[in-house]
Amino acid sequence: MSKKTRIGIVGYGNLGKGVEKAIEHNPDMELIAIFTRRNVKDIEGNNCKLIHISQLELFKGTIDVMILCGGSATDLMEQGPMVSSMFNTVDSFDTHARIPEHFKNMDRVSKEAGTVSLISSGWDPGLFSLNRLLGQAILPNGMDYTFWGKGVSQGHSDAIRRVEGVKNAVQYTIPIEEALEKVRAGKNPKFTAREKHKRVCYVVPCEGADLNKIEETIKTMPNYFADYDTTVNFISEEEFKKDHCRMPHGGFVIRTGNTSEENKQRMEFSLTLDSNPEFTSSVLLAYARAIHKFSQEGRKGAVTVFDIPFGYLSPKSPEELRKELL
Amino acid sequence: MSKKTRIGIVGYGNLGKGVEKAIEHNPDMELIAIFTRRNVKDIEGNNCKLIHISQLELFKGTIDVMILCGGSATDLMEQGPMVSSMFNTVDSFDTHARIPEHFKNMDRVSKEAGTVSLISSGWDPGLFSLNRLLGQAILPNGMDYTFWGKGVSQGHSDAIRRVEGVKNAVQYTIPIEEALEKVRAGKNPKFTAREKHKRVCYVVPCEGADLNKIEETIKTMPNYFADYDTTVNFISEEEFKKDHCRMPHGGFVIRTGNTSEENKQRMEFSLTLDSNPEFTSSVLLAYARAIHKFSQEGRKGAVTVFDIPFGYLSPKSPEELRKELL
Repeated sequence: MSKKTRIGIVGYGNLGKGVEKAIEHNPDMELIAIFTRRNVKDIEGNNCKLIHISQLELFKGTIDVMILCGGSATDLMEQGPMVSSMFNTVDSFDTHARIPEHFKNMDRVSKEAGTVSLISSGWDPGLFSLNRLLGQAILPNGMDYTFWGKGVSQGHSDAIRRVEGVKNAVQYTIPIEEALEKVRAGKNPKFTAREKHKRVCYVVPCEGADLNKIEETIKTMPNYFADYDTTVNFISEEEFKKDHCRMPHGGFVIRTGNTSEENKQRMEFSLTLDSNPEFTSSVLLAYARAIHKFSQEGRKGAVTVFDIPFGYLSPKSPEELRKELL
Repeated sequence: MSKKTRIGIVGYGNLGKGVEKAIEHNPDMELIAIFTRRNVKDIEGNNCKLIHISQLELFKGTIDVMILCGGSATDLMEQGPMVSSMFNTVDSFDTHARIPEHFKNMDRVSKEAGTVSLISSGWDPGLFSLNRLLGQAILPNGMDYTFWGKGVSQGHSDAIRRVEGVKNAVQYTIPIEEALEKVRAGKNPKFTAREKHKRVCYVVPCEGADLNKIEETIKTMPNYFADYDTTVNFISEEEFKKDHCRMPHGGFVIRTGNTSEENKQRMEFSLTLDSNPEFTSSVLLAYARAIHKFSQEGRKGAVTVFDIPFGYLSPKSPEELRKELL
């Protein structure tokens, strides 16, 4: 294939910017345009590929795959069907309970339009889902566990920032080492939330705020913190800016199982990420390559990572893959 | 699907026995027959499913997928085309340099016969290959490393057993922890063979043998040991039987890469196996499920793990997979 895969990005937040960077590392990909709901002139940097989303339709036929980088599940449930009525799409929809509904919507629209739409890609859902499936298919007589972190939870950080007297805050979810070791040993443990992950918070207080009260409010917050061992560290704005503005994340999918009474087997997949959005973007871009190939083969409708052979993710030909990577 | 996938096994060594056990853990699979070149009456246990390989053709139409468990690459290159002219097949062909040739042979025969043949499945080639591909597709600006072990190398164990004065022996390949850590730190190191793996041997000497000479012969053996740090331990036949008759193995595929100048990302897949043949068998069986579905869809010809969507490996429906595992 000499022709590049022509990519469009919808949404110019952290994820959209990550896709923009990822395209630079993939010589078979070409960025055509970035669509935003904001006023293009208001966006810093004045990127000449930024286009207002109202112009989307004009690009029909010039973009092979549109990567949906909308900030929230609501964005994706609205934008998804709209965009997939005109373009092949890839999204990272992660509201688990609504996946069947989103799949159904995207499938209907894409089949009518003759496009392919990949939903719920990224690393979880995405690569972690693939590893859960693989573990269960190969070791049916076993258990799997997913751990997340060390990583920033945006939802928990937001919850802390809403506490009175908090100026800024970040929350790290950290898997508990002893729990990981129990799982790796194949003991098939049952965990409470507290036994699997702990929560560590870095809080910049407002001047004169009651630190004890902030700490108490965080630690007893239902759903978010009450069921976990939570540590609250107060830091200055300077420290916050210096040490806590990155978005690290990662995690583990571990499957252990027995193939016979005496033989235990373990499969483990893990990610250690300096930047969650940049890694997620790189996954979405590899899947955009696959979706372009799917579409060229005449397929249509919604698909997930479970439907896509790994060979489609690579720019290499099947012959090259067999020779170099098998 | 209410109908079970009907499995045949060709070859009744460790791998074939592993498939036989794995079928017990998979209620959607059914063992029809095990084919062997040996005289069926000579085989211990008197398994009533054992059939002489000359009877293979009689089973046409009653077996959905034949799992080829021949002991050597030579077996598979001969048996493969013969069996795939009548049945869908799955094999674990692992002579890397001859993969293109084996693929070509199997593809030609399978296309003529209207069967599907999966070649080079298992964990390496197989699951490790998938992870190498995934790492390169997602983090093109990076490097990947494969480490093997701790595990028994059959080839190296055989080489020691050929040394004069050696009664029995086993060799473990062990990845060097410092090398793993350098790779995990994203330093993109270049390794000599000696820096990546070490070799530890357990040798039962013949009575009166010259131990120093055995040790010297092993450690200086070209290709097998001379390029590695090798440790030789002499043990009794009893110790050997007690501690060294299992076939553990495993390894790591690690990809590190940068998505931007400041952000490093790491993907790691690892296996820790009590029994190499039993795990490999379980992988082959999951892929047999996929090959049965491929065949039911009317596909034909040779394929590899790169061509098969993970969804096909699972007994669950696409709806269940999206709901439960995504």
